[in-house]
Amino acid sequence: MRVLGIDPGLRNMGWGVIDVTGSRLCHVANGICTSTGTDLAQRLLQLHHQLSEIIGVHAPDAAAVEQTFVNKDGAGTLKLGQARGIAMLVPAQAGLSVGEYAPNAVKKAVVGVGHADKAQIAHMVRLQLPGVDLAGPDAADALAIAICHAHHLQSAGHLTRAVQKASA
Amino acid sequence: MRVLGIDPGLRNMGWGVIDVTGSRLCHVANGICTSTGTDLAQRLLQLHHQLSEIIGVHAPDAAAVEQTFVNKDGAGTLKLGQARGIAMLVPAQAGLSVGEYAPNAVKKAVVGVGHADKAQIAHMVRLQLPGVDLAGPDAADALAIAICHAHHLQSAGHLTRAVQKASA
Repeated sequence: MRVLGIDPGLRNMGWGVIDVTGSRLCHVANGICTSTGTDLAQRLLQLHHQLSEIIGVHAPDAAAVEQTFVNKDGAGTLKLGQARGIAMLVPAQAGLSVGEYAPNAVKKAVVGVGHADKAQIAHMVRLQLPGVDLAGPDAADALAIAICHAHHLQSAGHLTRAVQKASA
Repeated sequence: MRVLGIDPGLRNMGWGVIDVTGSRLCHVANGICTSTGTDLAQRLLQLHHQLSEIIGVHAPDAAAVEQTFVNKDGAGTLKLGQARGIAMLVPAQAGLSVGEYAPNAVKKAVVGVGHADKAQIAHMVRLQLPGVDLAGPDAADALAIAICHAHHLQSAGHLTRAVQKASA
């Protein structure tokens, strides 16, 4: 199964793709979508184009997007929300189900604790995906989201099999 | 010229289309896009489908989206931001330029003052678009945004012509 993780942002949107075979994770690709200019609609369109192309090239089976921090900076939250709308839409347009994970859940899945800085996340992503070349902190976060989603899907799969076994 | 106005919202997204001929405004259509369910990506996809269809059917030449109130409810701002991302993206995908207007600017253009309640806006929209049948307050707001954009485009047109005349 191939999983796409997305770390939403208007200026820089991190993305990362991994392959999941049993409990084995394998890096496929990672990068950063960017948008520039003052026209918001055009910036969202740029992100939509780039994300659509990534899904076209890498053909993931599932996607997950980080839940955004809601802070007191309303204008910042709104900006991030608009970018996150695109991050959720594009995989849905490709027929993928889209998981959502809080930043703490992602950190817990990858680092083992709910509070970790960017450097720790990048370090653990490198350990779990040997040989990965990270395009930047946002791309590392996106791979962490993909890893978190892979763990979640595995647990759900184990649970389903256990229930099937118990009721057999 | 045909103008589409959009009042963004996740549950209810108002839309309204008007024709502008010189200073004459004429109602074309209005309605409300809705999204339901607990899956955010699917809800955004529903809004994207509906808005894309409206643009396909009515073929506007320009679009405008209301700037969202940023308040202290971060979760609400984020939700609205995600819906607003779709409202900005869909016209941009159709090659339209997308204007943005603050709620006060819309009210000033339609009611004459920057503070007006929903009932006043609906009343003034009915006066300016005789015979209009409003699908609801969100649709009335969307028509008000379209009217505001029409006024703005007219002023810009007058200015351009005045400058051309002065430099002729």
